[in-house]
Amino acid sequence: MNRQYAVLKTIYLHFQFLHLNKDNTKWQLMSDPNDLQALLDEAWRHLSRGVADSRSPARCPTFATVAPDGTPEARTVVLRGASRSQSVLEVHTDIATSKVAALQHNPKAAFHVWVPRADLQIRITATVEIQTGSDAKQKWDRVPEGSRVSYGTRPTPGTAILDAFAYEKPSDSERFAVLRCNLLEIDLVHLGARHRRAEFIRENKWAGTWLAP
Amino acid sequence: MNRQYAVLKTIYLHFQFLHLNKDNTKWQLMSDPNDLQALLDEAWRHLSRGVADSRSPARCPTFATVAPDGTPEARTVVLRGASRSQSVLEVHTDIATSKVAALQHNPKAAFHVWVPRADLQIRITATVEIQTGSDAKQKWDRVPEGSRVSYGTRPTPGTAILDAFAYEKPSDSERFAVLRCNLLEIDLVHLGARHRRAEFIRENKWAGTWLAP
Repeated sequence: MNRQYAVLKTIYLHFQFLHLNKDNTKWQLMSDPNDLQALLDEAWRHLSRGVADSRSPARCPTFATVAPDGTPEARTVVLRGASRSQSVLEVHTDIATSKVAALQHNPKAAFHVWVPRADLQIRITATVEIQTGSDAKQKWDRVPEGSRVSYGTRPTPGTAILDAFAYEKPSDSERFAVLRCNLLEIDLVHLGARHRRAEFIRENKWAGTWLAP
Repeated sequence: MNRQYAVLKTIYLHFQFLHLNKDNTKWQLMSDPNDLQALLDEAWRHLSRGVADSRSPARCPTFATVAPDGTPEARTVVLRGASRSQSVLEVHTDIATSKVAALQHNPKAAFHVWVPRADLQIRITATVEIQTGSDAKQKWDRVPEGSRVSYGTRPTPGTAILDAFAYEKPSDSERFAVLRCNLLEIDLVHLGARHRRAEFIRENKWAGTWLAP
């Protein structure tokens, strides 16, 4: 009886990974649900696509930091770089923003991405290096002219102003910073018919572990 | 000369708030771009809709907390309540999740919502009360049977397991918690033709201030 149940359960667990392809023309078997590396590969595909494709869900992650008073802060950022071999994600920012003040005090940050079509939540923690001046010059040189106004707002971001538009956006290379985010941990949740959750840790050379979701 | 420029600038700033309606049949004037309360009203409309409509962008905010070791954490949550009169947002969770461990150590949290159609980023900070047992019983009684399995996963969420599906989801009212988030600050960024950013603070009875974006 228990054995029959186990067999039925196995069939069921695999059946849910059988999906129609995009054109509804044929059934496709997804990768083994227990394949940890396949899940990590998928997350990196989304991150890489985020850098290249402005309409990809990973283009604009939510980026959380801790303010000097201990309050968590979260805002949308644009993903500018993703290197799996270096375990690095890259974000560009104005050094006058609150996220830089937060990171100077506590260099830990978290990324959050929800990929609707894949039913995948990507959560990443990182230690952030703030690169400015000559360390960031190469990257600044590649920022398109029209995007440079994102670095240099006067008065500085977060300053109270009397009118909604009482600010200017000159471009200022001295205000440009690259946030080089050295990844520590990747936590993935796949919201399939049954949820799967796995954690991948840099210290373990990115080996993964399934977690109860 | 300066005066002519000022007049032209005023016309321009108002022109950008003239939009075609949804059917492209007539021009509509948006509210005064300097109307702080109109912007706050809009944010609350989205938050209220998030509670009622599962497809609304505010249905699933990103919720950031600070882990006991000082690392920020962010994850998707479901918005279960939004009361403007009480300045409260409500989230339900399993007490065995990392967010509860984080909030027991540091009760501050941040919500982040991006509303694509409105080009509006809603950022909120709050102090969170964790209600369990008899304090949460009324809310538990209203959780649909099928949703109760979200509270009680065994082993507890985040525990390493040997197989992706080596967990069970019984429902357990003892594991149910209401996170009553008492709002402290609302920071709104409207990414229009020109960006507008405003901050609203509970201490100031939710009066707003424009900020440089």
